[in-house]
Amino acid sequence: MNVYKKRLDNLREYMKHNKVNMSVVTNPDHQFYLTGFKALIYSRPIILVVGLKASHLVIPGLEEVHAKEEAVVDHLHVYFEDGRNTDEYTDYLKPLETILSKNEGGKIGADFASTPVALERAVRNFGSDVTDVGAEIVRMRYIKENEEIDKIREVSGWINLAVGESLKAARAGVTELEIDDAGNSVLYREVPKKHPEATLQLMGMSPSGPLRSVMPHVFSNSRQLKDGDVMIHTRQVSLNGYRTELERTVFIGEPTYEQKRAFQSMLDAQNAAIEALKPGVKASEVDNAARSVFRKDGYEKYAVHRAGHGIGISPHEEPYIRFDNNLVIEEGMVFTIEPGIYIPEIGGFRHSDTLVVTAEGYEFLTDYPRDLESMIL
Amino acid sequence: MNVYKKRLDNLREYMKHNKVNMSVVTNPDHQFYLTGFKALIYSRPIILVVGLKASHLVIPGLEEVHAKEEAVVDHLHVYFEDGRNTDEYTDYLKPLETILSKNEGGKIGADFASTPVALERAVRNFGSDVTDVGAEIVRMRYIKENEEIDKIREVSGWINLAVGESLKAARAGVTELEIDDAGNSVLYREVPKKHPEATLQLMGMSPSGPLRSVMPHVFSNSRQLKDGDVMIHTRQVSLNGYRTELERTVFIGEPTYEQKRAFQSMLDAQNAAIEALKPGVKASEVDNAARSVFRKDGYEKYAVHRAGHGIGISPHEEPYIRFDNNLVIEEGMVFTIEPGIYIPEIGGFRHSDTLVVTAEGYEFLTDYPRDLESMIL
Repeated sequence: MNVYKKRLDNLREYMKHNKVNMSVVTNPDHQFYLTGFKALIYSRPIILVVGLKASHLVIPGLEEVHAKEEAVVDHLHVYFEDGRNTDEYTDYLKPLETILSKNEGGKIGADFASTPVALERAVRNFGSDVTDVGAEIVRMRYIKENEEIDKIREVSGWINLAVGESLKAARAGVTELEIDDAGNSVLYREVPKKHPEATLQLMGMSPSGPLRSVMPHVFSNSRQLKDGDVMIHTRQVSLNGYRTELERTVFIGEPTYEQKRAFQSMLDAQNAAIEALKPGVKASEVDNAARSVFRKDGYEKYAVHRAGHGIGISPHEEPYIRFDNNLVIEEGMVFTIEPGIYIPEIGGFRHSDTLVVTAEGYEFLTDYPRDLESMIL
Repeated sequence: MNVYKKRLDNLREYMKHNKVNMSVVTNPDHQFYLTGFKALIYSRPIILVVGLKASHLVIPGLEEVHAKEEAVVDHLHVYFEDGRNTDEYTDYLKPLETILSKNEGGKIGADFASTPVALERAVRNFGSDVTDVGAEIVRMRYIKENEEIDKIREVSGWINLAVGESLKAARAGVTELEIDDAGNSVLYREVPKKHPEATLQLMGMSPSGPLRSVMPHVFSNSRQLKDGDVMIHTRQVSLNGYRTELERTVFIGEPTYEQKRAFQSMLDAQNAAIEALKPGVKASEVDNAARSVFRKDGYEKYAVHRAGHGIGISPHEEPYIRFDNNLVIEEGMVFTIEPGIYIPEIGGFRHSDTLVVTAEGYEFLTDYPRDLESMIL
């Protein structure tokens, strides 16, 4: 599993430069990136420790078999919930203390954006200073390796099927939940035919109508679609840990003049941001390309969020396409581009596509119609 | 919304006793408990601040409408991603600093089990000591109010339908993902008929066969069931934020002698733990009731997890039914009872039911057959 060794070695280089001998990593997505292991739930702590020479995973007993199958680490340290043997660990802090005791006077790294205060205080009580290494792991994840891009491309090939099936189900009388479910079901049925032993995680969201479509992020609910509704259908699909996103704004029947105008502005803004996407450009310039369209069309005050975000392992990950992010875009970064506007009583308008930055500019990983005519159901 | 005021006042009592004037709460489930607001994703920080007199929610612009609809708080502080107006907040730290500046020399509380180090350090830089209040919020959530129990009872009435439909779909050739999907679909279809405008969150997990059923927690995958498989089907359903759990161990065709023996031991252990459940008993005694059965039957080394956990808002919440938890059980606590054993090459065995502790003992909230005969598909 050279990919994990390479990533760990990158982190170790950073650690050496910063006199960090061991790093405690708690963010589940960072752990997956560095070891290939992802758990279903973290109510029992799972902690990765990256030393300069060896890596360690502290896991609860019920994950032991799972971790042996999937975690690419040098040492597993299992803690048990049964208290049968007095020489077994019964909580995560003891094995962590044992591992960190091998730190020879260096600082301990931790991912400060995720590691809870309680854990950091415990580590400090073991006797070491703690410093942030999380920002570096985030930076490592900015640029996707070819193998990662292939995985995102592969799952992007499936997302059309889900969105198509959901939009086929969308009509007056059907609930938002049923629309999401139609897309889920087709993937649960079809993906296994091509991918035996694959994990598949699905997210759908379909706020509809004038009151709900103006909320960019709300759980789908049991509201029934009505004629004249605008709906933003959102879909994320993760296949074996890598994910993609595709979102479309659709109309149940003919949109009004105001809705058509807002839709066109959103589409222009998305196109402008996509055209701006290439190596050497700042993230803020991409955001501004979209925002300028909204400004020109008089919609800027309704554009309440950034124009996009990184995607790969996490549903949202850095870099963010934000007005104040001056990070320079590089080849191999993968982004959603999704400027949106939310106009009270008129509706919400947002398409989202997933694209990879290439040497020349961009390549669409998702591929689904975006024009108004295709969006009138 | 008196329920939220009562909860905030309980927290404030604790804060006063501990000379804490303001508490920063980041755990999304604690935020839901204290305000009724839950977001879909937290990549943009959402922070609740509970002062002795007023409550504050710091939210990103795209949650403003949503929060106005659902958050029961005194003040909303919105930060924007567009940088249009120089007098608007553009990140979450500025409004947080403004709110906390009204702290008059007291300590700042935070939920240490969730609050990331980065946020705690920022708060300390604002000039106050930070102390844990999270353990108290966890304690407040131990005992469910009658209104909460009613909500868990209501969603428990739906979970049978999902599990029944999933198990109806389970046969050789069908994938784990399709089994989960069958249960999802029936709820997405039926729940809206009774609950317009409700949110519904579903979790299914169906590790099957001798290699996968011994992993207590893995995502369902595209493995097809085979004749002779044992499968643990897990289901959680959350309706408007309150959840329940039901799990059943089933067989595709006739189980072997060893499987029958292990199944019976698991069933005896679950019954023993349920019979032990009542006010005045320690959580460890309930765990031990189950563990004693496994010990007697020679299976103890395969019982790698606790016998159950609290449930309500979070998928797993305290109190945990663990061998070393001497917390005394009280009326109004809601638990899953789910001792399990995982025997290499034989399979995994676990049922889970959700029960509320009553004055006399317990009441099943889930209600589904548990006997061997019903579990042979």
